[in-house]
Amino acid sequence: MTAADSRGHIADSQYLERLRRAQTLLGERAIGALLIGFGAELRYLTGYEALPLERLTMLVVSESSDPSLVVPRLEAMGAALAPAVRAGGVEIVPWDETDDAYGIVGRKLDDELPPGSKVLVNDRLWAAHVFGLGRVLPEIELGLASELLRELRMVKEPAEIAALRSAAQAADRVIDQIASGRLVGRTEADVSAEVRDRLIAEGHETADFAIVASGPNSASPHHEASERVIQAGEPIVLDIGGLLDGYSSDTTRTIWVTGGDPAKGPDEEFIRIHGLVHEAQAEATSAIRPGMPCERLDGIARHIIEAGGYGPQFLHRLGHGIGLEVHEDPYLVAGNDEPLPEGAAFSIEPGIYLDGRYGVRIEDIVVCGADGPIVLNESSRELRVVDG
Amino acid sequence: MTAADSRGHIADSQYLERLRRAQTLLGERAIGALLIGFGAELRYLTGYEALPLERLTMLVVSESSDPSLVVPRLEAMGAALAPAVRAGGVEIVPWDETDDAYGIVGRKLDDELPPGSKVLVNDRLWAAHVFGLGRVLPEIELGLASELLRELRMVKEPAEIAALRSAAQAADRVIDQIASGRLVGRTEADVSAEVRDRLIAEGHETADFAIVASGPNSASPHHEASERVIQAGEPIVLDIGGLLDGYSSDTTRTIWVTGGDPAKGPDEEFIRIHGLVHEAQAEATSAIRPGMPCERLDGIARHIIEAGGYGPQFLHRLGHGIGLEVHEDPYLVAGNDEPLPEGAAFSIEPGIYLDGRYGVRIEDIVVCGADGPIVLNESSRELRVVDG
Repeated sequence: MTAADSRGHIADSQYLERLRRAQTLLGERAIGALLIGFGAELRYLTGYEALPLERLTMLVVSESSDPSLVVPRLEAMGAALAPAVRAGGVEIVPWDETDDAYGIVGRKLDDELPPGSKVLVNDRLWAAHVFGLGRVLPEIELGLASELLRELRMVKEPAEIAALRSAAQAADRVIDQIASGRLVGRTEADVSAEVRDRLIAEGHETADFAIVASGPNSASPHHEASERVIQAGEPIVLDIGGLLDGYSSDTTRTIWVTGGDPAKGPDEEFIRIHGLVHEAQAEATSAIRPGMPCERLDGIARHIIEAGGYGPQFLHRLGHGIGLEVHEDPYLVAGNDEPLPEGAAFSIEPGIYLDGRYGVRIEDIVVCGADGPIVLNESSRELRVVDG
Repeated sequence: MTAADSRGHIADSQYLERLRRAQTLLGERAIGALLIGFGAELRYLTGYEALPLERLTMLVVSESSDPSLVVPRLEAMGAALAPAVRAGGVEIVPWDETDDAYGIVGRKLDDELPPGSKVLVNDRLWAAHVFGLGRVLPEIELGLASELLRELRMVKEPAEIAALRSAAQAADRVIDQIASGRLVGRTEADVSAEVRDRLIAEGHETADFAIVASGPNSASPHHEASERVIQAGEPIVLDIGGLLDGYSSDTTRTIWVTGGDPAKGPDEEFIRIHGLVHEAQAEATSAIRPGMPCERLDGIARHIIEAGGYGPQFLHRLGHGIGLEVHEDPYLVAGNDEPLPEGAAFSIEPGIYLDGRYGVRIEDIVVCGADGPIVLNESSRELRVVDG
């Protein structure tokens, strides 16, 4: 956690541009204001990485007034370093420990908003803050900021795509390092700790997840590393990621370790399900085009896996958007028929999970380019059979 | 992040006891149900460390039904390992990617609750989930779970106090290691990285913050480590912590580095403000008794600092509760007149901050014992003047 961060690759002026675009949308949609607490939306609009505290930090954006950032006084010095503040686009409004911070936010809006106005809060704002705002804005209808900001955030700027590519390729290097190292006889937790260290060594500022799921554990999509000792003759699902320059990496590869014993290679069914997942991953990726319904990509991958006889074992959606958050819009899931925007970045990660036996998942981060997919990950998706 | 964790020091049966006590309180207060998403309350009631995902995970507790845990199907295998589930006290209800998870929660309650019932959600539940529940429970009044759970969580069980003590003493060791190492000529960020490594080496599973605020940066209470190079002849505020066995450490010491030059010791005013903070910290700590208003402790410390002429420079409240969260009830702040319960654990952390020059903070974690304070931190609070 850094109190403020210049995020070198995003120019300060870009935050002012994002704020202006948000203000324009507020006007077009007749929405009264955005009230944004700590998290990705605040980072998106101001570059300010506020601490996740019970003390209220809240960016107030309306169409007609200059944006202001209500912060606890003891955070004011840090907030002043945030790019959008430094660039003169956001005024800092500090509050003291015994002030009613919600009241300060409410009074900023009271002057502008008629009763019945709609105000949007960030999707991950804590319930305590939601109810605190509801108390001081009883005549205001509260909604979710993603309603307005999602269309901005989904379309990645060139600097954001560059940041996602750097993060993806750092994660690729870690996958390759782990796949070529010793694995058999070590615990999952030990390998997971190595993954985290290597993510940091490759430039990540945080290593947020390092799933190492061996043997039967690989059948649980979100298994975390345990004290289980990795055996020769089984697969390992590696699903790793974190933040690099504020942007997320998230990649998955499934490898098979033999312990050097040629008799302990993958069995026929494992080769078959890895092949199906690989094919589904490749087909869905190559089908990416701007404007297609998000759910169609899920359908393409699912059709291949269903035709192979493993439909019920593909337990989850095909993918999720990625950027400042590891999961964000758009979601590639049945029922989401929104058109895929050009510039969207998301995971493509089909999987097959055979309960009690093993599982396979392959995941890349891909950008929807004007003419098709731009794949950010480069490490091999083939079934790697290694000594381990 | 571990999908589930046995938390060795808390017996599985203790989670069932906590659930039973919560159910009893629901009956006594005529509250319809608790709806608890990922976070500290879920860990408190079930031991389940759910991932912070957009997919809904929700514990449903009502007075008359057995608790159930609504989880995304791909988390079900991990959730089944949670202590309260393993102990048979919570039924797992998985939902599939295209299900309406809010609807599943809503239908669980519809059968039981009359319109107008009150239901409490965890204080940090995301707004998206609050509004999702509001949609399926339009006749239900939503409130905050802390209203009910705070009195349970504030009174630490012996195993929780033991865990907090282990975490505090690990952080103490890191403070002592840093204070006796080389500091002058290194960047704050470099020292901060060493703090994080040492917290992990001393048994923490996460190192959540490692404030290293040198020279003028020490005047910002929540300054994070920067690229500033530490100079001889200035103070450093070290405010560090993380989770050890699921419980938080949080301790602060202020040291002065001379670079080995006796002429670069602390000036008179620094010695004076360190002495005032030290005295305020000691006096507030020794005054701790069950039943006293929380704000009185803040007042005791503030009075000493005000009498010394630095009232306006004591920018923040005296302290915050600590346990599964680094900040939780009770808060030691003017205006909070609730009585301090026996068994509460909290920080005592006065500070003085002279803008542009330097600052001092001293912080311990203390438990309110039957007869007075039980101080969990042991490292010296004296002004340490070191070569660095």
